[in-house]
Amino acid sequence: MELYQAIAGRRSVRRYTDQPVPREVLERLLTAAQWAPSWAHTQAPEVVVVDDAQIRDALRASLPETNPANRAMGEAPLVVAFSARLGRAGFKKGEPTTIRGDWMMFDVALAMQNFMLAAHAEGLATVCIGMFDAEAASRAVGAPEGTTVVALTPLGYPAAETKVPPRKDPAQFVHWNHYAEG
Amino acid sequence: MELYQAIAGRRSVRRYTDQPVPREVLERLLTAAQWAPSWAHTQAPEVVVVDDAQIRDALRASLPETNPANRAMGEAPLVVAFSARLGRAGFKKGEPTTIRGDWMMFDVALAMQNFMLAAHAEGLATVCIGMFDAEAASRAVGAPEGTTVVALTPLGYPAAETKVPPRKDPAQFVHWNHYAEG
Repeated sequence: MELYQAIAGRRSVRRYTDQPVPREVLERLLTAAQWAPSWAHTQAPEVVVVDDAQIRDALRASLPETNPANRAMGEAPLVVAFSARLGRAGFKKGEPTTIRGDWMMFDVALAMQNFMLAAHAEGLATVCIGMFDAEAASRAVGAPEGTTVVALTPLGYPAAETKVPPRKDPAQFVHWNHYAEG
Repeated sequence: MELYQAIAGRRSVRRYTDQPVPREVLERLLTAAQWAPSWAHTQAPEVVVVDDAQIRDALRASLPETNPANRAMGEAPLVVAFSARLGRAGFKKGEPTTIRGDWMMFDVALAMQNFMLAAHAEGLATVCIGMFDAEAASRAVGAPEGTTVVALTPLGYPAAETKVPPRKDPAQFVHWNHYAEG
């Protein structure tokens, strides 16, 4: 798929069929995620691919029941947890180098955007989930000390069309040289 | 450009020509950035496009001299600052909803990855810069209270080939269902 088509066509999908994801397609998505840049090439992000029913249930249970993506976590054939090693991105000799501290959320998002675009190009769907109990999710996948789950997505074929939420006026998104005064 | 080609071909480029970036190309990159998803569609990320010499110098000065991207900030015809409104992504009714607090870094990275992929597809180059004085950069672009610059990139045509840094073994990047014990 053409890049701009993938960027503009990707939606956050919350209804999935149970059609399995071919292994070779999944491998392409994982490679795409790994091609994202990372802070000083520290490669903090990692991925856990989950098809085990028990682990998937535990991940789903880490979401509030009110999370609109909750049902999707039980529908899609796979759940993918994006995790990260702490104290790498943004760190030098064990100390943070900026006021932002750990840049692992930033680097996970770079990788996840590649993954979500590639999924869309393959006819698959995702929805980036951040509102869940990260400690419970990290326990569910056995994340070792110093590693944490950052974001989740179901991965599968979309069961329904999804509306395109309108973006704000580009004039509110882009500024030229300097923010307007006042 | 085909999506996977863009994902695999994008490099972090630190040498630029002074060839200007056509306005219509820049507009496509900005639109690509805006198409990224955001937390509950809060659309916290914003972009400041800088061609003013004084503001660009101030942004460049926010980088340590040792930052290998420092020179690139003075070479490329444009510098783009990715900023974000604080207290939106990850927040509900003014309160953070997860242990991660503000998800603005995550959402900025989603938008920036779209932008960097689109730049590569247009024959342009970028390098994602996080190691700089964010407060100084925010002052340089006049970011209003509650808005901060998160990451920077020069934007222009690449002056040199860039090596491909090898990624770690996929077996270190991908885990199946559960991290290995011990």
